[in-house]
Amino acid sequence: MPLYAGAMTVSEFDLIAHIRSRSGTRGDVVLGIGDDAAVMDVPAGWQLVVTTDTLNAGVHFPHASAIADIGWKSLAVNLSDLAAMGAMPAWCTLSLSMPQSDAAWVDQFLDGFLPLATLHGVALVGGDTTRGSLSISVTAMGLVEAGVALRRDGARAGDDIWVTGTLGDAAAALCAVIEGESTWPTLRARLDRPTPRVAAGRRLLGIAHSCIDVSDGLLADLGHICESSAVGAEIELDLLPVSAVLATLDPAARWHWQAAGGDDYELCFTAPPRLREPVLQAMDFAESAVTRIGRVVAGQGVCALQPDGTPWQPRKTGYDHFRG
Amino acid sequence: MPLYAGAMTVSEFDLIAHIRSRSGTRGDVVLGIGDDAAVMDVPAGWQLVVTTDTLNAGVHFPHASAIADIGWKSLAVNLSDLAAMGAMPAWCTLSLSMPQSDAAWVDQFLDGFLPLATLHGVALVGGDTTRGSLSISVTAMGLVEAGVALRRDGARAGDDIWVTGTLGDAAAALCAVIEGESTWPTLRARLDRPTPRVAAGRRLLGIAHSCIDVSDGLLADLGHICESSAVGAEIELDLLPVSAVLATLDPAARWHWQAAGGDDYELCFTAPPRLREPVLQAMDFAESAVTRIGRVVAGQGVCALQPDGTPWQPRKTGYDHFRG
Repeated sequence: MPLYAGAMTVSEFDLIAHIRSRSGTRGDVVLGIGDDAAVMDVPAGWQLVVTTDTLNAGVHFPHASAIADIGWKSLAVNLSDLAAMGAMPAWCTLSLSMPQSDAAWVDQFLDGFLPLATLHGVALVGGDTTRGSLSISVTAMGLVEAGVALRRDGARAGDDIWVTGTLGDAAAALCAVIEGESTWPTLRARLDRPTPRVAAGRRLLGIAHSCIDVSDGLLADLGHICESSAVGAEIELDLLPVSAVLATLDPAARWHWQAAGGDDYELCFTAPPRLREPVLQAMDFAESAVTRIGRVVAGQGVCALQPDGTPWQPRKTGYDHFRG
Repeated sequence: MPLYAGAMTVSEFDLIAHIRSRSGTRGDVVLGIGDDAAVMDVPAGWQLVVTTDTLNAGVHFPHASAIADIGWKSLAVNLSDLAAMGAMPAWCTLSLSMPQSDAAWVDQFLDGFLPLATLHGVALVGGDTTRGSLSISVTAMGLVEAGVALRRDGARAGDDIWVTGTLGDAAAALCAVIEGESTWPTLRARLDRPTPRVAAGRRLLGIAHSCIDVSDGLLADLGHICESSAVGAEIELDLLPVSAVLATLDPAARWHWQAAGGDDYELCFTAPPRLREPVLQAMDFAESAVTRIGRVVAGQGVCALQPDGTPWQPRKTGYDHFRG
């Protein structure tokens, strides 16, 4: 219930009806948008996997972002979390806070959000629209075969450390945005339209000992695995996968983006060395590049080694939503 | 990933660790706060029920609200949606956006949020904390026996219309807040700490034909039932349940709050007249007052009748988050 009134163009109910009219569904959705809550069937033998992430204007995306890109990214970051669990995405809810009810804005938002949902067979089953500063909160729900979800706490000393795709592109693009510079379109696309590695996560079930998505920066996220698993990690900076564009830069410049940048939405995972071939095959099936970047060791903390074997210290170890 | 830095006192990771340390769990939570996503078991024969609601400062609660009350209410409004489906609450996620990372604020928030969660056996399984205008987004998940969830679209001509508890107290209190006046503590408590009618919703399974929670105002919410069910409704204003405090006011003054105020979080439901005794027994078991206020008719729209039998027009028919 709002405390004050304003000059708005579309009622909340009209806006929800409009979102509903554009949303797809799935056979396991008993009741979608339009009741007090959604009702879904969960198949026997599967577990429910749930994650939620909020994106705020000026914090998680530049104020000048294309609206469709905001839509894409708000779902992508949540699907990336499901991917890191090895889950199959199924349903999502969307909470939109915006300064005024703007149907055209919502349409452009859905132009980015819904194609990604369709790509992964995700049904938008509920949510709400409210007045406030621009903020998008998505809860994504997925399914995973009982007992096999990938977790952060399963890494063992001796495991290989792997990462999908390339690292640092989004951070390099963000740096350009902040400094008001232009950047390569391929880097900017990595920032605006990240690819959640859903197929890779699914293929890693039964292979990976631990997994996380790289959202805060490789060192920070690998650090979460180490802390949860009570192990340490060594990675080699010259092994970090790099895009063609970033490869043209001085290594010392790009290492920061690759190791401590964030917003990559690649999967970092560990697996025993005897499963190197299955890892490569699985990622081949998932059409995902994959690179072995280091090893899990006894101890604690993540050590990043330079090519000469000496440890490297980043300026910072990943993003914190309150520290920047 | 944030675009700018600020002077903050606690890191996001510390804040999440703190929330985690205060949160309870349940046996069906395989993996709670602290991984990329939560993992839960859904029992065979039950369906998943999901709802999400966002509360923004100055829109859904006064800026000067007690922080613990904001915590209570942000969960209560979601549990009320689950109650309207007849679902048993199980899990929730919490997304907190706040201008700066403030552990003391979060503690007070949890002082209201967690006791209500405990009361209903709800485990907080995930969420995030981000920088932004104060905004709280909660997703609540519940379980309902397959195929029996209460819905908006089951009302039939001839059904009785019932409502739990009393109506209008929260709206009267909000009116006082907006006008800067003091109000009765019992009314203010209805605004700040609404009671989700979870037990009532559970007891109505197999009895009610349709159900909704009264959040936007009785006429608006009953209107949703009518629209979804392709029926009309007649209610009698002098039958609307009224608290002792509101009963002292002139009827014409309180009707607006009772019929068109909102924020009541009572259940409005319809049931066939032959089940009047079971309804009364069910609500007795649920320790919830219940009042028969009208009937479902053929046609469309909701007609509110004054004691002399003439139709009554409210100044407005419920709250819209964009119109106020």
